[in-house]
Amino acid sequence: MTAPAHCPAFAEIARRVNNWGRWGADDEIGTLNLVTDAVVREAAACVRTGRRVPLALPLQQDGVQTGLIPGRVNPLHTMVALNLELFGAGAVATSDDAVTMGLQAGTHWDGLPHVSHGGRIYNGRPATTVTAHDGAAFSGIEKSRPLVSRGVLLDVARARGEELTAGAHAVTPEDLAAAEEFGGCRVRAGDIVLVRTGQIRRYLAGDREGYAHPSPGLSLRTPAWFHARDVAAVANDTLTFEIVPPEIEDLWLPVHALHLVEMGMLQGQNWNLEELSEVCADEGRYTFLLAAQPEPFTGGTGAPVAPVAVL
Amino acid sequence: MTAPAHCPAFAEIARRVNNWGRWGADDEIGTLNLVTDAVVREAAACVRTGRRVPLALPLQQDGVQTGLIPGRVNPLHTMVALNLELFGAGAVATSDDAVTMGLQAGTHWDGLPHVSHGGRIYNGRPATTVTAHDGAAFSGIEKSRPLVSRGVLLDVARARGEELTAGAHAVTPEDLAAAEEFGGCRVRAGDIVLVRTGQIRRYLAGDREGYAHPSPGLSLRTPAWFHARDVAAVANDTLTFEIVPPEIEDLWLPVHALHLVEMGMLQGQNWNLEELSEVCADEGRYTFLLAAQPEPFTGGTGAPVAPVAVL
Amino acid sequence: MTAPAHCPAFAEIARRVNNWGRWGADDEIGTLNLVTDAVVREAAACVRTGRRVPLALPLQQDGVQTGLIPGRVNPLHTMVALNLELFGAGAVATSDDAVTMGLQAGTHWDGLPHVSHGGRIYNGRPATTVTAHDGAAFSGIEKSRPLVSRGVLLDVARARGEELTAGAHAVTPEDLAAAEEFGGCRVRAGDIVLVRTGQIRRYLAGDREGYAHPSPGLSLRTPAWFHARDVAAVANDTLTFEIVPPEIEDLWLPVHALHLVEMGMLQGQNWNLEELSEVCADEGRYTFLLAAQPEPFTGGTGAPVAPVAVL
Amino acid sequence: MTAPAHCPAFAEIARRVNNWGRWGADDEIGTLNLVTDAVVREAAACVRTGRRVPLALPLQQDGVQTGLIPGRVNPLHTMVALNLELFGAGAVATSDDAVTMGLQAGTHWDGLPHVSHGGRIYNGRPATTVTAHDGAAFSGIEKSRPLVSRGVLLDVARARGEELTAGAHAVTPEDLAAAEEFGGCRVRAGDIVLVRTGQIRRYLAGDREGYAHPSPGLSLRTPAWFHARDVAAVANDTLTFEIVPPEIEDLWLPVHALHLVEMGMLQGQNWNLEELSEVCADEGRYTFLLAAQPEPFTGGTGAPVAPVAVL
Repeated sequence: MTAPAHCPAFAEIARRVNNWGRWGADDEIGTLNLVTDAVVREAAACVRTGRRVPLALPLQQDGVQTGLIPGRVNPLHTMVALNLELFGAGAVATSDDAVTMGLQAGTHWDGLPHVSHGGRIYNGRPATTVTAHDGAAFSGIEKSRPLVSRGVLLDVARARGEELTAGAHAVTPEDLAAAEEFGGCRVRAGDIVLVRTGQIRRYLAGDREGYAHPSPGLSLRTPAWFHARDVAAVANDTLTFEIVPPEIEDLWLPVHALHLVEMGMLQGQNWNLEELSEVCADEGRYTFLLAAQPEPFTGGTGAPVAPVAVL
Repeated sequence: MTAPAHCPAFAEIARRVNNWGRWGADDEIGTLNLVTDAVVREAAACVRTGRRVPLALPLQQDGVQTGLIPGRVNPLHTMVALNLELFGAGAVATSDDAVTMGLQAGTHWDGLPHVSHGGRIYNGRPATTVTAHDGAAFSGIEKSRPLVSRGVLLDVARARGEELTAGAHAVTPEDLAAAEEFGGCRVRAGDIVLVRTGQIRRYLAGDREGYAHPSPGLSLRTPAWFHARDVAAVANDTLTFEIVPPEIEDLWLPVHALHLVEMGMLQGQNWNLEELSEVCADEGRYTFLLAAQPEPFTGGTGAPVAPVAVL
Repeated sequence: MTAPAHCPAFAEIARRVNNWGRWGADDEIGTLNLVTDAVVREAAACVRTGRRVPLALPLQQDGVQTGLIPGRVNPLHTMVALNLELFGAGAVATSDDAVTMGLQAGTHWDGLPHVSHGGRIYNGRPATTVTAHDGAAFSGIEKSRPLVSRGVLLDVARARGEELTAGAHAVTPEDLAAAEEFGGCRVRAGDIVLVRTGQIRRYLAGDREGYAHPSPGLSLRTPAWFHARDVAAVANDTLTFEIVPPEIEDLWLPVHALHLVEMGMLQGQNWNLEELSEVCADEGRYTFLLAAQPEPFTGGTGAPVAPVAVL
Repeated sequence: MTAPAHCPAFAEIARRVNNWGRWGADDEIGTLNLVTDAVVREAAACVRTGRRVPLALPLQQDGVQTGLIPGRVNPLHTMVALNLELFGAGAVATSDDAVTMGLQAGTHWDGLPHVSHGGRIYNGRPATTVTAHDGAAFSGIEKSRPLVSRGVLLDVARARGEELTAGAHAVTPEDLAAAEEFGGCRVRAGDIVLVRTGQIRRYLAGDREGYAHPSPGLSLRTPAWFHARDVAAVANDTLTFEIVPPEIEDLWLPVHALHLVEMGMLQGQNWNLEELSEVCADEGRYTFLLAAQPEPFTGGTGAPVAPVAVL
């Protein structure tokens, strides 16, 4: 294992992309500050046909988790009432459900306190402000709202002429720029960027293990690109978000550390971008209004989200 | 208890509003069929200032449930990892959460199979198609997507000049029409209607019991109004949606039966419409783009939702 | 699939072992009626050295369940408080845990209503008396107490000179009789019989899939043997209790149906009998006091148990 | 709030009863070391009539928790399968349950790491060895087995001639000695002592709030008495174990700190001793074999237990 702080490549990038203090010492939402009313008006202006595309995987016992990540369990959906005639025989009967799940188990946002390094979370707060009893005292996922902005699909797989990006390809800034050009769009401040690798096709085809690893994912070099463009958040269609195995041996989750801790930028995983890829190709445009509000679990270090792109 | 079928008033309304077969024998989404691309384009056209208003209550142990509804538990948020250095000392550390909750515990949509009467759910399917093992085989909440449309706030409390609608007031079609006029808008086909009573102020002020009952809510006479306007879905800011205690003695949940079973129309509960009420009053307009996609639990008879209104 | 009622071999045995009405039409505990005070006095008389042997597997995420049995999840252990100084800085601090698990996930008793056939559970009650809302209205696991009796280990593997019983061996009445003779004991009315195949060694060695199937287990012919001896309950060291795949093609779980439904006899699964086998061999005796009270979940169709043999 | 270390009365007792190092620096089970084979033989010799008395409350949604202790939720019992014909129509059908609950929610043992003070748990280990991910690395409840010993009922309420001990009575060493004399028994090394106040009658009568507080409980002075007798464990019939409100203003949970941290002695709460009180009075003896094995949750800081007394 390499501690990020001991890796010069990481440290140099961290210094460049760091946003601590940028929105004040009290800030808890980081790059979501970049989603201004003006950005949202532009997002609404992207709606032309009115087509809507859902981006969440169904939440079910047979979800993407394989047991590899300890404690991150697929949803267990149970019934606590089944056509229960609570008010007497013949009355209106009700069915009620309960669920147990990992907040990061399906299509989700990682909240800013989901990772720490060097004992710190976003904006320099101590990692110990996340506790078993209260969850995250700062930057809990319930603070990240409302989350509607302009979305941009960077369809890396399609731009590369591939159905899915091969093996453990590290998606680079050059890949992002090429996908931008392919899509005829330009990523701007406040955008939510969706990076498609096609990797989720493995899960959809029934191969959970193959989906998990090896996996393409965002390169250590991409946070600087997102930082330069001042994007509000980034999501993709992989389990780990980053390339697995990592680019630098034993340096695990550096992109998590850069996005969540240094930049204060939400990142999304297990987003199903397959239908969106078809629709964008069909309409010949890659920008849209994106509604992607996480479920506001108080103190959550992440949360499920059911995003919808509106074209 | 009165069985709905034995209540002439109920039976007469049921006959008028019934949508079984309207969108085919195979249909599972009911009035969501009314949300066309054209409706969504009009929804986007409502966005003028770009202000966004979240409508979900935070999900937490201290939620709206009081224990009155058996098995419908407030969210229990726990940590399964806390700054865990999974990859060795000094590595990037991760925190992970798990939750157990009733799907109908917080701000949620009731799915169509959430209630049955006379052994039937929407579109005439047997109530026994909801099972402990699979949940709802038909019209599960995962089918209800994507859920973005034009939203209309009918601010009944404000139109009546009240902070919150008094006691167990039954919100009538006349109240809805008055709120429409107050808001200077007209409810149209495919709209999602939000009915504000102000009742949730009781919960926000710390009075869970007072929030639960007695409670204002939609009168048995309102489904016909929604049916006449062909709305796509209705949500409000109460625990039970309907007036508690009921208008007709011992006839519990008649509006649930009419909306969910007869009409095939989603209904939402525990929506926090307080900030929206302020913003609409401030902007002097009561229509907006509403993103309200439920979490897609496979077989769920309901699901949490984190709605956002975009003005 | 073969319906048990359509299988002559099953039907004939069912007729012979059926205990419906034997302890009255109101009875809910079946063969536990055979555990008399006299039996318990004899159990206590078996205690000579005072050695105690625990028989439960640890309850943990990495438990015996493989995902094969839908919804039967291994325990998810989480912390809701970690050295929480609820009463101020420096005060006594508390840690608290929560768990979500299948009641039949680890070392457990199957309660009588855990299976039904022909629409009936034990004592002829309708299977529909088990509901999502209340669980089992009759013979719920909370009724099965107190559960202390004389235990007898029938060490089939050791009697056969094997470390673990090979492949999908059907443990027969002849095997039971041979193990009895090997152990120098005789099974009597009210005893709890523990049948050791050694199969759990596969799980303990890290092979969960191999533990699950193929698996040795009790033959369809053994219930008549247990019935003849009037035993109170039977447990073994396998996942399914019965041989997998089944002896009669497509006739699944016949022994469950005979024990739980026809006889009204609890059966236990995933009991770790390895240490007990060593101790019994060492002491040269196979009878002991057995304390095996299930956790009394109201309406449970089964429950975890942490059994202890006292020699 | 008073930190225990700053309270001279506490510090003086802590010094006297401390068992750190007594069974070696590696010890994880504390006073359970006192349960020798000889003690268990004596326990078995207490069995005369063969009567068995269960001591656990049923595990159900309507349990003893009131919401006062954050995150300690009553059991939520749900069904994941209901007479499911997994193997085809007409096959043997199965019902399966799942549960979510606080491990300390019902009748339970507090494990040694359940509390810490001054940053330490039993045997001087750092409190930080309890983590969200693994629970307790040392002295987890799974280590506390097998737990069978001689039980002694000290029926304080009956000895005082009361149905239930009045108000917030602090059970003193003098009360214990009087109950011993009343019962005609003497507490010895390795015994598990059950102290009955009768307080649980409030819960059994439907008064959950009254059960919680005010409550009689063990006085700060009793740990020294238990230490002098070298008992193995102590349980009682209250929610908090200790007197509520506490004897010394703002010094909360001192008995927890003395028993669990200083002595390394398990303590049990919410044990239903009502039937046992009747049986002991009826038989005129207060000693018995007690089987009280906690469910072995790996890393658990406590666990449910379904104890049985055998007379």
